[in-house]
Amino acid sequence: MLALGCELDPDQEVVRTRLEDVPASPSPSTMIVSFLRPPSHAPCTACGTVMTVHIVERMASVIPASNSSMRSDRNTYVGKRFVHVKNPYLDSMDEDILYHLDLGTKTQNLPAMFGDVKFVCVGRSPNRMKAFALFTHKELGLEEAEEDIKDICAGTDRYCMYKTGPVLTISHGMGIPSISIMLHELIKLLHHAQCCDVTIIRIGTSGGIGIAPGTVVITDIAVDSFFKPRFEQVILDNIVTRSTELHKELSEELFNCSKEIPNFRTLIGHTMCTYDFYEGQGRLDGALCSFSREKKLDYLKRAYKAGVRNIEMESTVLAAMCGLCGLKAAVVCVTLLDRLDCDQINLPHDVLVEYQQWPQLLISNFITRRLGLCD
Amino acid sequence: MLALGCELDPDQEVVRTRLEDVPASPSPSTMIVSFLRPPSHAPCTACGTVMTVHIVERMASVIPASNSSMRSDRNTYVGKRFVHVKNPYLDSMDEDILYHLDLGTKTQNLPAMFGDVKFVCVGRSPNRMKAFALFTHKELGLEEAEEDIKDICAGTDRYCMYKTGPVLTISHGMGIPSISIMLHELIKLLHHAQCCDVTIIRIGTSGGIGIAPGTVVITDIAVDSFFKPRFEQVILDNIVTRSTELHKELSEELFNCSKEIPNFRTLIGHTMCTYDFYEGQGRLDGALCSFSREKKLDYLKRAYKAGVRNIEMESTVLAAMCGLCGLKAAVVCVTLLDRLDCDQINLPHDVLVEYQQWPQLLISNFITRRLGLCD
Repeated sequence: MLALGCELDPDQEVVRTRLEDVPASPSPSTMIVSFLRPPSHAPCTACGTVMTVHIVERMASVIPASNSSMRSDRNTYVGKRFVHVKNPYLDSMDEDILYHLDLGTKTQNLPAMFGDVKFVCVGRSPNRMKAFALFTHKELGLEEAEEDIKDICAGTDRYCMYKTGPVLTISHGMGIPSISIMLHELIKLLHHAQCCDVTIIRIGTSGGIGIAPGTVVITDIAVDSFFKPRFEQVILDNIVTRSTELHKELSEELFNCSKEIPNFRTLIGHTMCTYDFYEGQGRLDGALCSFSREKKLDYLKRAYKAGVRNIEMESTVLAAMCGLCGLKAAVVCVTLLDRLDCDQINLPHDVLVEYQQWPQLLISNFITRRLGLCD
Repeated sequence: MLALGCELDPDQEVVRTRLEDVPASPSPSTMIVSFLRPPSHAPCTACGTVMTVHIVERMASVIPASNSSMRSDRNTYVGKRFVHVKNPYLDSMDEDILYHLDLGTKTQNLPAMFGDVKFVCVGRSPNRMKAFALFTHKELGLEEAEEDIKDICAGTDRYCMYKTGPVLTISHGMGIPSISIMLHELIKLLHHAQCCDVTIIRIGTSGGIGIAPGTVVITDIAVDSFFKPRFEQVILDNIVTRSTELHKELSEELFNCSKEIPNFRTLIGHTMCTYDFYEGQGRLDGALCSFSREKKLDYLKRAYKAGVRNIEMESTVLAAMCGLCGLKAAVVCVTLLDRLDCDQINLPHDVLVEYQQWPQLLISNFITRRLGLCD
């Protein structure tokens, strides 16, 4: 049973989680889901095992009471659901400058530009996200000429952003801090634009564990380097632990959608999210390596046993932030290698390109199906 | 006195640092510097206060004994010092693919391409780093035509890289994970290319604390969100704590160099490095905010009292990795706002551009002086 030593501190208005109280290797049949309520039980989405659910965070009391009802609708498709910020200061600001997106509430008419957005697709690489935007444009049969699809964030080189009909495509760079900045500004953008019922999907590449390269993993729960379903956010000098469960029905819908694509290898599993590509993922080929091959394999095998099927670097914070702000979120990553076999990505270029297209193909099919554009 | 509860675990070959043993608010007169040796004392570089120095890490025993002598020369300019990796597996690899740089030991002649590199300048933005490369090219009076300065990593869009004489300029994206991947591959690149006596400087922008916007901060020690001089690296599922001291003589040389530039506001101080731009830096304008304005100001004032003069998102890992691998490292960031006054960056465009040029100007002056090209 997961036993996070939560302690309410009315003065600090956040929960301090004492890591020393957390067992080193929790059972994979435990997960963290939501806010301060008594512990309860829920079946595992994959195997049906009953899980003990502990409550790890409350938002501060400065948040208006009217927002609290939003907490209960995390896993439903029912009703019109606006993207909401959880910041009582935001609406009193005269202007909100989304610095890293080069957008602002006074310089752009955000509702007019983005009000119809229903799908947001994000990924690491600017080039791949541009390719996805062009692909989506074609698949949706939009009237706009392809050359008119411009980078909306062209005034900055931090991220790139393209809009094709109701689909917004954004690059987020590498790692949790980089995607976190983008997500804060994206969520504010969708809030200012009064968007509702928005689905966000991260598409990308990853290292697999015990599965064939080229397999697409749809994440049910993102876990950290200790195989725990949590994202630790430092707020001032407190650590707050947040849930990293992805949207269950959305993941299942994507999985069902993948069955319609010939030769599509896919599975639903846990995704491990690390802060580092080399030492943090147990690679033997970094500039620094202080562990043996045996220790590496032992670690990766323990990850597999805990339900982890792939490793990447952004999923925990995406799950945490989108869960809190009313965005239905999914993570869909293809594996480029099996980490039980090797550390270096040395696929032939054409195979690498083909693998990278699998998540794009799935999401494109999913969107056209949702929009009723399928044959 | 800083009392990190270090515990050697011969089986794991790394030190586990128990965070619960670390006081919540350590005195600023303590710092962590190096490897496993008895505690000792050293004077503060800024104020002369005698500091208690604790030893927090050893590299694993798999590292060849011949490398151990490199540990003693961290703060010296004496002798020819090669960039070294600390990975016993690397030299036995048939090929090393630097995946995110799109380079490799079999596809490129790295010694021929990079063997003369003496300075590496890194920063977040690809556009700004290209501008710096072109500026350096002009300042060094190189014969090569400006249009021949191409992005060496053009085959990938993760990072960009330019070489102008002995100066290598690279973009590293936003946040610790992004710069960490680049540093692993850069250090391997410099090792494969047999470079020696290499100086690396991160130039960038930051949020100031209690100092006027436009001030350039040269970092003496990078600290984390808890004002501690440490970088916590997760290796497999252990946490290893590393020193985050920058190169003292290099920082002083840069400071002296800045005195020669008219109207250049600069100081040497601590830099706080966070994993997040919004909640992690106490901003009230993110999509999520669970603390009050008073709590934010209290936190920032405590940071100031601990010696922090600016906040950015990459310095701790840069200090830690370069310190371990024999690269003399500095961090030079201009402040764009005073966080005690505001959260949003709303400088007029021309002022923003001017501020961003200050670190570039200082580093360019420093390099031309080192190369004996100054008037």
